[in-house]
Amino acid sequence: MQTKTLKELAEYVGATIQGDPNAVITSVAAIEIAKQGQITFISNKKYIPQLHTTKASAVITNIKEPCSTNLLIIDDPYYAFMQIVVLMHGHRKHKNCGISPKASIDKTARIGKNCNIYDHAFISENVTIGDNCTIYPGAFVGPGTTVGNDCILYANAVVYDDCIVGDRVIIQAGGVVGQDGFGFATHKGVHHKIPQIGKAIIEDDVEIGSCAVIERGTISDTVIGKGTKVGDMVAIGHGTVVGPYCLLVPQVGISGSATLGHHCVIAGQAGIVGHIKIGNLVTIGAQAGVINNVPDGSTIVGAPAIDAGQAKRAYPLISTLPEMRKALKSIEKRLNKLEGNE
Amino acid sequence: MQTKTLKELAEYVGATIQGDPNAVITSVAAIEIAKQGQITFISNKKYIPQLHTTKASAVITNIKEPCSTNLLIIDDPYYAFMQIVVLMHGHRKHKNCGISPKASIDKTARIGKNCNIYDHAFISENVTIGDNCTIYPGAFVGPGTTVGNDCILYANAVVYDDCIVGDRVIIQAGGVVGQDGFGFATHKGVHHKIPQIGKAIIEDDVEIGSCAVIERGTISDTVIGKGTKVGDMVAIGHGTVVGPYCLLVPQVGISGSATLGHHCVIAGQAGIVGHIKIGNLVTIGAQAGVINNVPDGSTIVGAPAIDAGQAKRAYPLISTLPEMRKALKSIEKRLNKLEGNE
Amino acid sequence: MQTKTLKELAEYVGATIQGDPNAVITSVAAIEIAKQGQITFISNKKYIPQLHTTKASAVITNIKEPCSTNLLIIDDPYYAFMQIVVLMHGHRKHKNCGISPKASIDKTARIGKNCNIYDHAFISENVTIGDNCTIYPGAFVGPGTTVGNDCILYANAVVYDDCIVGDRVIIQAGGVVGQDGFGFATHKGVHHKIPQIGKAIIEDDVEIGSCAVIERGTISDTVIGKGTKVGDMVAIGHGTVVGPYCLLVPQVGISGSATLGHHCVIAGQAGIVGHIKIGNLVTIGAQAGVINNVPDGSTIVGAPAIDAGQAKRAYPLISTLPEMRKALKSIEKRLNKLEGNE
Repeated sequence: MQTKTLKELAEYVGATIQGDPNAVITSVAAIEIAKQGQITFISNKKYIPQLHTTKASAVITNIKEPCSTNLLIIDDPYYAFMQIVVLMHGHRKHKNCGISPKASIDKTARIGKNCNIYDHAFISENVTIGDNCTIYPGAFVGPGTTVGNDCILYANAVVYDDCIVGDRVIIQAGGVVGQDGFGFATHKGVHHKIPQIGKAIIEDDVEIGSCAVIERGTISDTVIGKGTKVGDMVAIGHGTVVGPYCLLVPQVGISGSATLGHHCVIAGQAGIVGHIKIGNLVTIGAQAGVINNVPDGSTIVGAPAIDAGQAKRAYPLISTLPEMRKALKSIEKRLNKLEGNE
Repeated sequence: MQTKTLKELAEYVGATIQGDPNAVITSVAAIEIAKQGQITFISNKKYIPQLHTTKASAVITNIKEPCSTNLLIIDDPYYAFMQIVVLMHGHRKHKNCGISPKASIDKTARIGKNCNIYDHAFISENVTIGDNCTIYPGAFVGPGTTVGNDCILYANAVVYDDCIVGDRVIIQAGGVVGQDGFGFATHKGVHHKIPQIGKAIIEDDVEIGSCAVIERGTISDTVIGKGTKVGDMVAIGHGTVVGPYCLLVPQVGISGSATLGHHCVIAGQAGIVGHIKIGNLVTIGAQAGVINNVPDGSTIVGAPAIDAGQAKRAYPLISTLPEMRKALKSIEKRLNKLEGNE
Repeated sequence: MQTKTLKELAEYVGATIQGDPNAVITSVAAIEIAKQGQITFISNKKYIPQLHTTKASAVITNIKEPCSTNLLIIDDPYYAFMQIVVLMHGHRKHKNCGISPKASIDKTARIGKNCNIYDHAFISENVTIGDNCTIYPGAFVGPGTTVGNDCILYANAVVYDDCIVGDRVIIQAGGVVGQDGFGFATHKGVHHKIPQIGKAIIEDDVEIGSCAVIERGTISDTVIGKGTKVGDMVAIGHGTVVGPYCLLVPQVGISGSATLGHHCVIAGQAGIVGHIKIGNLVTIGAQAGVINNVPDGSTIVGAPAIDAGQAKRAYPLISTLPEMRKALKSIEKRLNKLEGNE
């Protein structure tokens, strides 16, 4: 186990100490359950009271508050927290199993250096896997697909044929990349399957959640841009291009042939119809239904999705519809009276 | 095949017979398709007409209705129906395959008595599996995880490392427990992965549906309480604590760090934002969007979710908005006239 | 690679040529990126400007427009496009691997002619698989299940026990058929599992998307009708019967015991409650919430779902609620004045 003094941690992340620089930190915990020897964080003022009750030995925060707990004060406490979790706990360690003889690896596949390929993983013909990759049991890589360096495919993750996966890509268990798009030509009432000849391209530093599914393109490629994080159970349609550094929260659905700019945040269960263009730095609320192009920098909410400020005033008024209706009826009665029609 | 008389079944479930106690029952079927020798059930008055037309030899019901069909009358017919299905058909039988030599079981794993572990299942280092468990092909149990007694992991179910699974837990095919939470610290436009050092804890008697995904916690654990049933394709966020005996219907999504009390029912496709508290005995309607704390015993509906009674009056009025708007315009005209402004 | 003249393609699909019948076509591409030697298509007038800028050697279209690009003019350009993609690119080719010795096939299973069964696929006891099937790694077929001819089960697809899968069925990676329905009898606060003794029946020519999940029936069977296409991550409840030639777009959810007619189109993320009847030729909009029976030929939208024409007028007016409320208040003031109450 790593042990650090608060002084060491402050220097590591560039924070100011309020309290005892010699406090000893051995691990990280949530503020409610943190014990002596643990460090935690808050970044929201509503948690200030917990500064006075926590048993943590230190709290990372951007809030200056006189308290008996030691503080590590820094502008971006969540980022500092991340750095300290990585420092003290590290990312998941994978068993150094090398290439298991029980994995199935086609003789035409090229596997880089220092890879772990577990039992029952399946690497098809003409696949290229980079260096330092870990491929868990049941993971499948289809013919002709290229996977970069330092990738992790967790148990039962699937990448279909002829796809391109960049460096440092993580696919959680059950995630699927490059399955056939939902593309059918309906003729005389019968749906005819259109071969999906586009690829799925997953750029560097993308993470794909469990049971998230990224369709390959019909004729143009589906792309998930560099550094974008795709939550569990997100569905991306064929030919959709998601820009870099987006966050797609679990259960989001994006239909085919849509384009998203960079740094978009799409909250849980939101849906985006196909063939539209979402600009850069767009924020879309949970369960929103987006049916039109969205300009850069917009924040939209609701189904149908509208400007967030407007939505926050409008959607809660749905609950007042019965009283509005009643008011209207009463007004009409009074008007009739005034007009002498009653 | 089991064969029982109506009398035997009545005694087994504690029901009263209306009709022939010697009627012979060989199996269970739906009321529309039940034939002679079969028993079925109704618990809703709208199905009373079917009592007079069904070919079933008996119907379990809480409704006293003179009819030519034999009735098993009991307060909770659905529970009696369940008991009789279990009696006559039983739960799924698993092939007694023992521990397959084609399963991969780390030498440090401890496996209880009477387990079935099929080909291509993967049990990692330092795993503990209890007695009488069945692990289907392609299922994966990560390092350090503990699984209790009498559990079933269906094909390709995945439990990540260091999780805790109680007794009598069922994970349907493709269900995932303990994958990394959607946790990133965004700094200068780049999303940095936060190691997810919390566990996922699945308590006794939980069932998890196909392609349902339960994230592990970032720093505090994700918990699914005893006896809770999680439907297919439900997504649970990191650090969320679901109380005991909840029903989470398919496609529900709950963000991270939420807490739910006991005996909550969350209907299909509903979404709950993170960091809120849902009380005990709360019912949430299908597709609801829950963004605030919910007190014990509430029934809420809609997006945004409001009290169900209010919602049932309000939401349908959305369809009257065009006529309300028209009425408003007409009223303004009439007012203008009355005021002499026209 | 296939090479065809425009004349050959026109004859193949029955189209009229506008331009050079001797133009040589080697592949298919999207209109924005098509190069010389490639054919593309448009079926929507808004893409007419692209006819004048595309570098494609030909465009399949139903729009007669004077332009320098060669056109293949035909009534149903999308169908012709599909035919040409199949002609020139073909459907995915599967490695002719035969029956791998590393697949697990119970000795009681009957496997048809010309099947490919990959490593780590698992075929249980008493399974019947037809001719020309391809079963990818990690796919699982449960005891007693029948799979027809010409089926494809992609990596990690799962079909539970005693199900029936027709001919030419495709299950994409991670799709699950026949898992237990979400059926519990709640008695004194405890949810008791009801054995799900119905089957799941997948008729001919059905395609099931990645991580789509089709529950088996509680006592009557779940059915997906002939030629119906089920998108990624669609959830179908126990005992629901979907008619033939429906399109269920990704993330749709249908609860148990619902029935759908033929040729229904259910758009993304829509939800349908259980025990209702959707007619034939019904179209349901994205994110709709359907809680009542729907007559044949309806088009409905919204949550709660209403007639689409009405919904398109009504739902956007939600955003005007604040101004309607304000107008009401102002009207009441004016009325009070007129009535002499102020």
